[in-house]
Amino acid sequence: MTHPLSGMEALSWPNPELLADLARLRDRSPLVHCITNAVVTNFTANVLLAVGAAPAMVVTVEEVEEFVRIASALLVNVGTITAPDADAMLEAAGTAGRSGTPWVLDPVAAGVLAYRTSVVDKLVGLSPTVIRGNASEILALNGLNGGGRGVDSTVSSVEALPAAVELARSTGAVVALSGKIDYVTDGEQIISVEGGHELMSRVTGMGCTLGALIAAFLPVSSSPLRAAATASAIFGAVGEHAATKSGGPGSFAVEFLDRLSTIGL
Amino acid sequence: MTHPLSGMEALSWPNPELLADLARLRDRSPLVHCITNAVVTNFTANVLLAVGAAPAMVVTVEEVEEFVRIASALLVNVGTITAPDADAMLEAAGTAGRSGTPWVLDPVAAGVLAYRTSVVDKLVGLSPTVIRGNASEILALNGLNGGGRGVDSTVSSVEALPAAVELARSTGAVVALSGKIDYVTDGEQIISVEGGHELMSRVTGMGCTLGALIAAFLPVSSSPLRAAATASAIFGAVGEHAATKSGGPGSFAVEFLDRLSTIGL
Amino acid sequence: MTHPLSGMEALSWPNPELLADLARLRDRSPLVHCITNAVVTNFTANVLLAVGAAPAMVVTVEEVEEFVRIASALLVNVGTITAPDADAMLEAAGTAGRSGTPWVLDPVAAGVLAYRTSVVDKLVGLSPTVIRGNASEILALNGLNGGGRGVDSTVSSVEALPAAVELARSTGAVVALSGKIDYVTDGEQIISVEGGHELMSRVTGMGCTLGALIAAFLPVSSSPLRAAATASAIFGAVGEHAATKSGGPGSFAVEFLDRLSTIGL
Repeated sequence: MTHPLSGMEALSWPNPELLADLARLRDRSPLVHCITNAVVTNFTANVLLAVGAAPAMVVTVEEVEEFVRIASALLVNVGTITAPDADAMLEAAGTAGRSGTPWVLDPVAAGVLAYRTSVVDKLVGLSPTVIRGNASEILALNGLNGGGRGVDSTVSSVEALPAAVELARSTGAVVALSGKIDYVTDGEQIISVEGGHELMSRVTGMGCTLGALIAAFLPVSSSPLRAAATASAIFGAVGEHAATKSGGPGSFAVEFLDRLSTIGL
Repeated sequence: MTHPLSGMEALSWPNPELLADLARLRDRSPLVHCITNAVVTNFTANVLLAVGAAPAMVVTVEEVEEFVRIASALLVNVGTITAPDADAMLEAAGTAGRSGTPWVLDPVAAGVLAYRTSVVDKLVGLSPTVIRGNASEILALNGLNGGGRGVDSTVSSVEALPAAVELARSTGAVVALSGKIDYVTDGEQIISVEGGHELMSRVTGMGCTLGALIAAFLPVSSSPLRAAATASAIFGAVGEHAATKSGGPGSFAVEFLDRLSTIGL
Repeated sequence: MTHPLSGMEALSWPNPELLADLARLRDRSPLVHCITNAVVTNFTANVLLAVGAAPAMVVTVEEVEEFVRIASALLVNVGTITAPDADAMLEAAGTAGRSGTPWVLDPVAAGVLAYRTSVVDKLVGLSPTVIRGNASEILALNGLNGGGRGVDSTVSSVEALPAAVELARSTGAVVALSGKIDYVTDGEQIISVEGGHELMSRVTGMGCTLGALIAAFLPVSSSPLRAAATASAIFGAVGEHAATKSGGPGSFAVEFLDRLSTIGL
């Protein structure tokens, strides 16, 4: 890093700012345009509805420009990318830049597979507001070998923290680095968020869903850094609570949605 | 409206005709060919299985003609439409007309996005048996600005009722207008259906799923009007019951499937 | 059959070999590359995570060769096949043969629709390690009319057992024939597996999910025959247990995942 960080902060649920952001989200019900992977579309939509946002999956290149202009935020997740998806994602991200729509890039398995890595490189060049990934993905985006084998990360989040800071500085995006501890940074400040439960790694697409939740907070939080931290803290708190009430990954997902719909009320 | 309605009726669960239609559905297990959106495929299939129908998602233009001829009913839902989907939908709907297979059109977000609106216009021209939509969508199909922003409707169902009647008259389709109160009309009669619960708007694709349920009743009810009304009444009754047993949108969806599998038994 | 079978065995949970295979799976967490249908992607991923495997859906022709080489096993399921899917499936299956990656073919509705039947014929020619299907599908692959109408089988598994043995002999694949009783055969031995519960037919894609579970056991079992039998036995035992705790198909699916995550621990 070329210059020192200006601050480091630990965030946990609840606090007044988190509650205020959440109340604002529920009041405004931001329309979140999702171009996400086939595995998590249903759960992502249900998570956004549970928290109080309005999800819409509009995925074809013929429609994304028009819809990004209506939407409050955009999520682009490359998990099951195909060539037509790539066209739609690039068109949507380009439009978001022109229309000022904040957007989240989730570079699933970047660095593992050449095709998606090249698409992700182009997407990063279109100035995402937030990049959310695990340690392997963040290392890969920073030009390093993250050693992932897909959605799993084989290094811990703290090991990738320097790369996250550098990536934030080089791209101008807030970087949300997911792991046992989540770190969120804009290249100057780092916010760490503890929470969550290991059951979250036994339900598909929890990380993808956090990306969607960050997108939902972008229109209602005071900054992208704050949006990413708020979403991570709420996500972790809901996960912890759901784990105490569930008997395995099936009931965990059910409890997660129930709890997300009432947290802070 | 150019001439008066012939009748208006309120329907609610249970009544003998509803029970008879449901028993017939379970006895015959109609094969429902679904070309629906990526968000709701799984839940739609599970709803159809729960009620006693046999769902099958066959979505490629190479196969739909052959499968529509086997199926008892067809559902076309444009929620996450792409250009290849549009080809398959138009081919399927055209085949349904030629083979006499009853079919439901769910024009998700018609009027909001130009591309899908043009495809929906073509689909309407292929004589759907039933058109199911919210107020914004029905207004849009009738050439009015419904003000929707995607799957949400920003006007109430009763405000769109005149448009629903006109749309039924101009197209020959039964129109199923979803909202706090559902209205079903063939342009002559109107059947109103109260029921449901606000939790249903917190689970993605409940409206889409109602479209599938209407398709399942088409082969076993005495008329398309009756099929749409029966499906709406059962849907609402199941939703009300599930809401009383659930702690949020996650458990609601689970209870909905459980209850649908036993209602009327 | 041109020569007699060498043996017939009945398998049921628990036994020491099943427990050892399951412990090995959880220890190694095999990476299972899934190219499966749109209806079951989420549930399939959650089932694989619940049992302890690592699922990854990589579906585009640009990426499958690279990913098959990383994966421990591959699943190809043609349930909602499109032409681009077919390209990816054939490329993935061809790569699996060259790289020695074991793979499962699930020929959903083969014999019912001409397009997918022709793709399935090509896939069978690429030497799947295991073919998993219901009686109608197995009969169709053996050149007989199985009378299916999609995912349903209209004949019982025992009636298709001779065809399963012949198919195993002619293709070199292990054939896993699903039904009220499951049969697994390599053309010499037959293993029968009782278990399961009728609620499993009321949840979409349970058969598809069994195909994924077989893929997960291929890298950790002593033979493909053993992998298919082990997966079937665990699947049935989990289904039976989940049924006793559930009030319908919604809660069944939840309990299934919970139980799968703890069985044998």
